[in-house]
Amino acid sequence: MSDRYKKGIEVMKEHLGPEAESYVEAIREVAPLFADVNVEFAFGDLYGHESSLSQKTRELVTIGALTVLGHALPQLKLHIECALRLGATQEEIVEVITQMIAYGGFPSATNAILAAKEVFES
Amino acid sequence: MSDRYKKGIEVMKEHLGPEAESYVEAIREVAPLFADVNVEFAFGDLYGHESSLSQKTRELVTIGALTVLGHALPQLKLHIECALRLGATQEEIVEVITQMIAYGGFPSATNAILAAKEVFES
Amino acid sequence: MSDRYKKGIEVMKEHLGPEAESYVEAIREVAPLFADVNVEFAFGDLYGHESSLSQKTRELVTIGALTVLGHALPQLKLHIECALRLGATQEEIVEVITQMIAYGGFPSATNAILAAKEVFES
Amino acid sequence: MSDRYKKGIEVMKEHLGPEAESYVEAIREVAPLFADVNVEFAFGDLYGHESSLSQKTRELVTIGALTVLGHALPQLKLHIECALRLGATQEEIVEVITQMIAYGGFPSATNAILAAKEVFES
Amino acid sequence: MSDRYKKGIEVMKEHLGPEAESYVEAIREVAPLFADVNVEFAFGDLYGHESSLSQKTRELVTIGALTVLGHALPQLKLHIECALRLGATQEEIVEVITQMIAYGGFPSATNAILAAKEVFES
Amino acid sequence: MSDRYKKGIEVMKEHLGPEAESYVEAIREVAPLFADVNVEFAFGDLYGHESSLSQKTRELVTIGALTVLGHALPQLKLHIECALRLGATQEEIVEVITQMIAYGGFPSATNAILAAKEVFES
Repeated sequence: MSDRYKKGIEVMKEHLGPEAESYVEAIREVAPLFADVNVEFAFGDLYGHESSLSQKTRELVTIGALTVLGHALPQLKLHIECALRLGATQEEIVEVITQMIAYGGFPSATNAILAAKEVFES
Repeated sequence: MSDRYKKGIEVMKEHLGPEAESYVEAIREVAPLFADVNVEFAFGDLYGHESSLSQKTRELVTIGALTVLGHALPQLKLHIECALRLGATQEEIVEVITQMIAYGGFPSATNAILAAKEVFES
Repeated sequence: MSDRYKKGIEVMKEHLGPEAESYVEAIREVAPLFADVNVEFAFGDLYGHESSLSQKTRELVTIGALTVLGHALPQLKLHIECALRLGATQEEIVEVITQMIAYGGFPSATNAILAAKEVFES
Repeated sequence: MSDRYKKGIEVMKEHLGPEAESYVEAIREVAPLFADVNVEFAFGDLYGHESSLSQKTRELVTIGALTVLGHALPQLKLHIECALRLGATQEEIVEVITQMIAYGGFPSATNAILAAKEVFES
Repeated sequence: MSDRYKKGIEVMKEHLGPEAESYVEAIREVAPLFADVNVEFAFGDLYGHESSLSQKTRELVTIGALTVLGHALPQLKLHIECALRLGATQEEIVEVITQMIAYGGFPSATNAILAAKEVFES
Repeated sequence: MSDRYKKGIEVMKEHLGPEAESYVEAIREVAPLFADVNVEFAFGDLYGHESSLSQKTRELVTIGALTVLGHALPQLKLHIECALRLGATQEEIVEVITQMIAYGGFPSATNAILAAKEVFES
């Protein structure tokens, strides 16, 4: 296991909690390179980059982006869980999704808010 | 001028600064309802909603969303200016856009980073 | 209940029929502001705006937009029901979706046509 | 020239006016098949299909779709001209674009409204 | 049955195999024009066009496009089956989807890779 | 310079030719991490991955993806140049873009074909 992978999986576990490894391994079965770069690049290089942005703010930004994209509800739910794990409140997540009405319209934001509701209730 | 409009234009000026009014008036010439709801709904109802999200965080989320959407460079530049006005650093804006590579890919993030560069240099 | 809300919910009921209130209340449980602006802004300000566009034409335009966006099948089905309620024929809805092949391609239009089929059959 | 092409170019001229042929010929120089299907399929098969939808309504739907897609301002301007040519009023076009705030958000609708303004002024 | 339809359905069967006809007939029940152009235009005119691109390469390009669009998983699965039928290997399909991380980001590519896994396992 | 960077910039030069370095350096001035991952991840990890896909096929897939995304014309032009450099013919590029009508519609494909025309003529 390379140092980049070690760093990435550590950051990923901070965000996704115990789900991190099963998430990656499901991908690895069919696409090892994909699994590696998901850990090393997305979590190691990007989320793991030293900066004055808190991990909580990073997750709120991701929730905004996934809301307007509209086609990634499974990942949106995952990142809502990440945001809660990293200290965001339900109210902040709801505010971010509501604000996204202005950038992606009602339908994608409605699907996001109902996804958030599901996560909050579970 | 309704109370909602007054609240909206006040929030809008906090974000856009002196550009707020000319931005709205350019739209109003052809679409008065559009101009009104841009102020009352987007800035009054959404950005103006009391919450524990800071206006700076709201702008960083918007920058993330506009980056992945990819089709709104003029608005992205405007919100980069808003974020700077509300206390975000250039480094934080660059971090947000760089993180968006993971959600919208390189081309939209590249166009966003070059847009940020233009704003920073002006 | 504000006048804007009253106007909005009235227009919303014209479009969605009896489903309007349960649709809004599901959102309100987790996001009260979202629920309010869905009624007041989307239906009150936009659909409720006096104009020479008929509500039927407005719904056909919405069906076209939701078709090309591709990520909002639940809302698309809802608006197909709205369009039928407001006097559009099945044939007109099918024509609009078919025309959208030219603007969003086959896959999103195929999913839309199969969604329409489901609505028509229910 | 096939019958399908003849029908297509006729419908296309109804919509685009004298610009139709130069639009197609610019494409044909590099991509003859593209030019042919743009005429035969988009205008012949789709717009030219007998139905109870008026050509004006078809153009309003297209304007809505191009507004939310956000990445096709040259085509949006063209279809705003088409809509005007086929009897839509400026006010109807503005209503359609304004309604699209609810489906694609403010930035794409703002760019569309400014594109409409340019067309109206020229 | 026109010559264009005959050519289209033949090409479509090469790609989709025995599923081609039921795919088209499900659409035809509600939208005959849609069914016709899906065969005649998409498969006859486009995939059926003589060129130095192999049908396998065409399918890999389609898989890339459907991956970044993100909203068309049923069609993506279908085209993964088409690609396999036309000689692409699982490894090549995985490479194409993995490459798409760079153009549409992780979430749409993750959903695509999991869709591919499902197809490979069935 | 890390080994990953060396590998990435080598692959990038094969694709972009002499433009590679100025492309990266324009980004590096404002966003060093972005510049690094563009080289190391996009070109080193993804394009540089050993596989039975040729670099030419990879570029054709990228051209298809950028065509349907619609918001990345500067990158599309760059990758059209890459494809030509790696052995694709103009005719193959035109075929790929034309095929994309079926997945992203005419407007994004039209803008792509006109971008290709510009590249071919320069």
